Amino acid sequence: MDLGEKALKLHEKARGKIELAGKVKVESDEDMSLVYTPGVAAVCTAIAKDEKLAYKYTNKWNSVAIVTDGTRVLGLGDIGPLAALPVMEGKAVLYKKFGGVDAYPVCLAVKSADEIVAVVKALAPNYAAINLEDIESPKCFEIQERLDAELGLPVYHDDRHGTAIVALAGLINALKITGKNKNAKIVVNGAGAAGTGIVELLAAYGFKDLVVCDTHGAIYAGRAGLDAHKQKLARMTNMNAKKGSLAEIIAGADVFIGASAPDVLTEKMVRSMAHKPIVFALANPVPEISPELAAKAGAFVYATGRSDFPNQINNAVASPGFFRGLLDSSAKKITTAMMLAAAEAIAAVVEKPSPSCIVPKLFDRKLESTVAKAVMDAA
Amino acid sequence: MDLGEKALKLHEKARGKIELAGKVKVESDEDMSLVYTPGVAAVCTAIAKDEKLAYKYTNKWNSVAIVTDGTRVLGLGDIGPLAALPVMEGKAVLYKKFGGVDAYPVCLAVKSADEIVAVVKALAPNYAAINLEDIESPKCFEIQERLDAELGLPVYHDDRHGTAIVALAGLINALKITGKNKNAKIVVNGAGAAGTGIVELLAAYGFKDLVVCDTHGAIYAGRAGLDAHKQKLARMTNMNAKKGSLAEIIAGADVFIGASAPDVLTEKMVRSMAHKPIVFALANPVPEISPELAAKAGAFVYATGRSDFPNQINNAVASPGFFRGLLDSSAKKITTAMMLAAAEAIAAVVEKPSPSCIVPKLFDRKLESTVAKAVMDAA
Repeated sequence: MDLGEKALKLHEKARGKIELAGKVKVESDEDMSLVYTPGVAAVCTAIAKDEKLAYKYTNKWNSVAIVTDGTRVLGLGDIGPLAALPVMEGKAVLYKKFGGVDAYPVCLAVKSADEIVAVVKALAPNYAAINLEDIESPKCFEIQERLDAELGLPVYHDDRHGTAIVALAGLINALKITGKNKNAKIVVNGAGAAGTGIVELLAAYGFKDLVVCDTHGAIYAGRAGLDAHKQKLARMTNMNAKKGSLAEIIAGADVFIGASAPDVLTEKMVRSMAHKPIVFALANPVPEISPELAAKAGAFVYATGRSDFPNQINNAVASPGFFRGLLDSSAKKITTAMMLAAAEAIAAVVEKPSPSCIVPKLFDRKLESTVAKAVMDAA
Repeated sequence: MDLGEKALKLHEKARGKIELAGKVKVESDEDMSLVYTPGVAAVCTAIAKDEKLAYKYTNKWNSVAIVTDGTRVLGLGDIGPLAALPVMEGKAVLYKKFGGVDAYPVCLAVKSADEIVAVVKALAPNYAAINLEDIESPKCFEIQERLDAELGLPVYHDDRHGTAIVALAGLINALKITGKNKNAKIVVNGAGAAGTGIVELLAAYGFKDLVVCDTHGAIYAGRAGLDAHKQKLARMTNMNAKKGSLAEIIAGADVFIGASAPDVLTEKMVRSMAHKPIVFALANPVPEISPELAAKAGAFVYATGRSDFPNQINNAVASPGFFRGLLDSSAKKITTAMMLAAAEAIAAVVEKPSPSCIVPKLFDRKLESTVAKAVMDAA
């Protein structure tokens, strides 16, 4: 039985991966009269007078909406909100397990940025933070910017923020073991949410030699047909305005970070990279290059987004602890300082980095509390 | 310490009454690869091909949205979505405890029928049924009609359907112990969601002598200023087009059912009723007449919506079991037949009805399964 069949069986048996649980006992009429009517009226009245008390008397303080429209689910593309539900339930399980966060799937049957923004704003009373997930780009950037401006709650984009944090953490350790530094020549393939988030965070960390490629090759200032989002990327990267395909751009690079599509990185491209090449092939579930081919081509460090290969650079490594810190600090905005602190904290959890261990395992007991503390300190 | 203070303390200590729980174990990399990426991709792909499989592989089958805009919370009026959250969390706890249903608060920061309908339609992928709650009338009727027509999921209005089912159940037993029957003269005070639902269900059950009063007195066909909703009520009740205030209309009545406002039923009015008067004072948390006054005035059967008095006619008695039956029968619509069956089932749970026991306690172990079975049989 292959992995897919096993997964189908597990999902069928559990008939869903999440459920609601009560945190209070209801065993008597008196319990009822406190949890529900008439006693609950006093709680409602208190919140009506001072809305902040919702954080004290309800589970709002610990509740997060995992919002998607199902337009870019894993590497599967636009499969719709119903087909996205298993991923969101999985994320909810991980957030609870590793961060103690109550995250609820909010799979939306609307697709325009206007509608998604309107729905999330309507839902705001229930949550302390929003997690955007698997929404296609560039729409996801507009949604995030508008919610950042209008919502009054922190809006975390898992693909953009989470993946970037873990990629930077992995890169910090990969540099250590290869003797490279912030002058490393880095090529990011993919200008969607993940690629963009990675570029933004690497730039904020201090890397200077960054080039982003999309399916048309290197993005540079003045390239014809760039949308506003890619124009912004062009302004922050590729200072020498290099042009060319990925195959041309990658020659001599120290680091390849893919957040793009299956099998776009060839053995030949890896061979053309600098000494001790670092390859993060994060397309999910099928990476840009397989572990076997990458090894054959001489990749010194190799990472993917998958849990069944070594070095899982997956937002799930960062996000549960990040949310824990975010919620516990009652932050209303997500800052670059929080993300940098989280990345450094994750890197530091690995005591002795090696090519097969540049990021901690999700099951590392220190991970969540370390990340949460770093975020709280930065908040 | 009074009830309100106790309730505040309980809510502060628990910091909310609900949380999310995982139904699958995540203890190893293999678990991760099945629950989340890459294994979950097979589940997503299966649902993308056949959307019905979402009921098989996710928790959609057992998930209900408790939707409110906070415009008519308990008897507290328009206190807003944040202040409504404690009630919705309480309801979620009861639905899980008594019906095994995973119900999630969806408190909305929008108020127009158009916006509420749009948001609920956008959220449909996550749920198997919708529970409307504490939305002011007549808006709630428009929302329900439009969702019934457009959503493709059953839409239960807790205040309208739930309260009506339990009121009819109580009335069935109250008639038995007073020797009255379907010819009983019934006055329903209040033409909001609860009053309307009660009138609709009593009419469907076969009661003929029904008069509804609002704050202007009896509703009759042709009364000036009736909105569409009350015109409909006028057509189904008050066949003799009686006019007058509640005090005038109630004289000689066998049954008073209030779903209106605190203290609007006086001792004198109860004294003017027929022999062995039946008084359901369902305004919450303060009933239309207190138990002491009702007893003094000679009420033979007295019920409220509260859990701390005998005879709790509260939708919470019906709704958890009703949803259990609804979800287990995969019903796509709520029918009058289901509601009548549920009411009769609830009445039958009380083996020996008496003035202080016309409806089962919420904690009656037979209640939920009996109601669920009745709904499934009717579905």
